Amino acid sequence: MSNGADEKQIQTLIERWCAAVRDKDIEAIMAYYAPDIVAFDAIIALQFRGAEAYRKHWEFCLGMCEGAMLFETHQLVVHADGAVAFAHWLNKCGGTDDKGEVKSSWMRASAGYRKTADGWKAVHEHFSAPFDMASGKALFELQP
Amino acid sequence: MSNGADEKQIQTLIERWCAAVRDKDIEAIMAYYAPDIVAFDAIIALQFRGAEAYRKHWEFCLGMCEGAMLFETHQLVVHADGAVAFAHWLNKCGGTDDKGEVKSSWMRASAGYRKTADGWKAVHEHFSAPFDMASGKALFELQP
Repeated sequence: MSNGADEKQIQTLIERWCAAVRDKDIEAIMAYYAPDIVAFDAIIALQFRGAEAYRKHWEFCLGMCEGAMLFETHQLVVHADGAVAFAHWLNKCGGTDDKGEVKSSWMRASAGYRKTADGWKAVHEHFSAPFDMASGKALFELQP
Repeated sequence: MSNGADEKQIQTLIERWCAAVRDKDIEAIMAYYAPDIVAFDAIIALQFRGAEAYRKHWEFCLGMCEGAMLFETHQLVVHADGAVAFAHWLNKCGGTDDKGEVKSSWMRASAGYRKTADGWKAVHEHFSAPFDMASGKALFELQP
């Protein structure tokens, strides 16, 4: 790791962004991204290009979630040097169903950052679940 | 882009690696990775940790593919500075079926790199297809 201070900053940025997701705070969620974000999300589309398109997708996603939300980073690794950084982690995602039971699954997350006048901003994001080759279905039961 | 020469090097590295995949050349495929690669592949498992585990997975994948293989980068973007870089692209994957027809689909790819004494090496890789929320099925028909 070539720059511990930047890596620590990005770790803090990611943790704050996760808290914003749990709070369903769309402004705080979007403040994390650069205007030219290229996002590969786990669902629906191959990619979302630009903050405006991705904001609409986030609004759709937040609209689907009722009740308390689980959104946690595990096994986070950050690499940073100069004005470029990337991170990867396993993201525990879930929520409480109508019987009050917590349901969760693991997603994989990767992100790329650039240092700007306004601090580090995410210019790339990739969330996914792996799929089973025989059924073509996403594998939601896998454990790290 | 802060360092065009490094970004060009990584672009060349990725193109060579894609050629190695098309050639099913396991040694050339593995030369692209650092020993401590953390890979989130599109299928089967949440993650593969370390070159030994990922090599076994690659051997399994190459063993499944008969005939000519399609493996191409599109919309490639590289960010590099100092000893850290990342890239993302859409990867056209496919092959020729037993009727001689070419079948392909689009995957999303992200990768993280570190500059080593042996040149740039991939320390992180993420391949995926997005899934449909209603069916839980991977979406193989999406077009960029």
